[in-house]
Amino acid sequence: MAESIASIRELRARLSPLRRQGKSIGFVPTMGALHAGHRRLLETARRETDVVVASIFVNPLQFDRKEDLDRYPRTLESDLAFCGAAGVDLVFAPPVSEMYPQEMLTSVEVHKLTETLCGPRRPGHFRGVATVVLKLLEIVQPDRAYFGEKDAQQLAVIRRMLEDLSLPVAIVPVETVREPDGLAMSSRNLLLSPAQRRIAPMLYRALLLARERVEGGERSAGKILAAIEPRFAENPEVRLEYFEIVDPRNLARVDVIESPVLIAGALWIGTIRLIDNLGANPGARPGSLTEAKGLRL
Amino acid sequence: MAESIASIRELRARLSPLRRQGKSIGFVPTMGALHAGHRRLLETARRETDVVVASIFVNPLQFDRKEDLDRYPRTLESDLAFCGAAGVDLVFAPPVSEMYPQEMLTSVEVHKLTETLCGPRRPGHFRGVATVVLKLLEIVQPDRAYFGEKDAQQLAVIRRMLEDLSLPVAIVPVETVREPDGLAMSSRNLLLSPAQRRIAPMLYRALLLARERVEGGERSAGKILAAIEPRFAENPEVRLEYFEIVDPRNLARVDVIESPVLIAGALWIGTIRLIDNLGANPGARPGSLTEAKGLRL
Repeated sequence: MAESIASIRELRARLSPLRRQGKSIGFVPTMGALHAGHRRLLETARRETDVVVASIFVNPLQFDRKEDLDRYPRTLESDLAFCGAAGVDLVFAPPVSEMYPQEMLTSVEVHKLTETLCGPRRPGHFRGVATVVLKLLEIVQPDRAYFGEKDAQQLAVIRRMLEDLSLPVAIVPVETVREPDGLAMSSRNLLLSPAQRRIAPMLYRALLLARERVEGGERSAGKILAAIEPRFAENPEVRLEYFEIVDPRNLARVDVIESPVLIAGALWIGTIRLIDNLGANPGARPGSLTEAKGLRL
Repeated sequence: MAESIASIRELRARLSPLRRQGKSIGFVPTMGALHAGHRRLLETARRETDVVVASIFVNPLQFDRKEDLDRYPRTLESDLAFCGAAGVDLVFAPPVSEMYPQEMLTSVEVHKLTETLCGPRRPGHFRGVATVVLKLLEIVQPDRAYFGEKDAQQLAVIRRMLEDLSLPVAIVPVETVREPDGLAMSSRNLLLSPAQRRIAPMLYRALLLARERVEGGERSAGKILAAIEPRFAENPEVRLEYFEIVDPRNLARVDVIESPVLIAGALWIGTIRLIDNLGANPGARPGSLTEAKGLRL
């Protein structure tokens, strides 16, 4: 059971002597409902830094839909046990009133990078993410902070925010953890019914197929998307929100694929929204990836 | 002559051993063209902290008019001598390319507090101020940062930004320094012609008259403003941009004055824009302030 601290003042009082002793601080911000993806973040931090701090805070600012906020899984007791097992030193789990004791008038925006993918579909989401992550980084003042590649756009936004504002924190991206059938680990997977859970890997399979086409030599993003998208229309339980091929540096849509790309999608299954992404390199030798072989949506 | 450092990396390399030795760091951000108002900021920092860092950076982000940016006074050599005389330890004077090496995609906004006074008249100004101040604070990581009360709205915006984002920096407000005729010290005063300079104190005199009415028992902001504003119309060289009575806590306009207020104005003299402000307390005994007696606009 990791120790949980609810107050900013107390957390700082605990961390500042450690910092003065020259200990490096690793930070893993989470919204709780911890799973194997978080475990990889925590283990990476554990390996790379002396003191590991995790935060558990379901941030209202970043939810564009109230029902999504209300039903977001909250499992604090088991999360603290999970953190304890992962070697976390301190868990910062503040109530909303500690993070936002007065009306939050300040917001941080990262432009351009939020104009594609989830950005236009979740108005205000990345503003809420950037704002809370900056605040958490000010509170914890870590040397290194760990973010999952599953949320590729979030990672890009946070990275750019820290570069633009010269924050003295290194951002460490950590690879997506997947279920055996390929579904990316996500706290939202808990909300899927067994039937929904069975069809959920179709997003990952579509990403693999798109990557296979890129690496097989197809240069037209439009052609790849035209081949992939209709497959989602076959199942009435699912709705494809987007499926895009973007430049990983600026997340701008790519028409002609000439350098490595990021392929990313968002899929609704019933009322649950799942996202996932994969990198693809047009320079890779065709056939070097066989994972997608024989896969059908 | 204070030592000047242009690079973020070098400044950090100089400050981090001092911080490890437990020295407190005071920071005075400026746009240069230093005057007696800055001297008070620097002297206050010198008194209260072990290491005083001043920055000199004319921030393009916060200028809403290109001609204002182009003609903003730049006097680096004499500023460094000024800082040396004021006991500054290090001057951070980065070129624009050091502060913004790539397109600045991140911006920080403080809502509501920027809806009155200068906010609506200088679109984007406070976004630029908040963004650069946050970045400078991340670079310098001071214990205390010093801001002049002359820029009352800027002070309120920065204070709120730091509260909202939990920055571990204390903001110290420093009283406005005035010329013998009451004109608030400002780098822009350098741009006034001798004739313009002679009429410039009319803004301060108007503030004094308004304060006298508040402290003399007038509770209607509208009546006070109606008595003050026409006086500016008498001189064809000047144009009153705004003259407002606001709540100092949230900068919202006040109709009925029942608690301390901030009276603030912006005045154009030719193409030069000057701002100033005064606090006023309706609980003050009438006659306790005699400064405004006999003054005429």
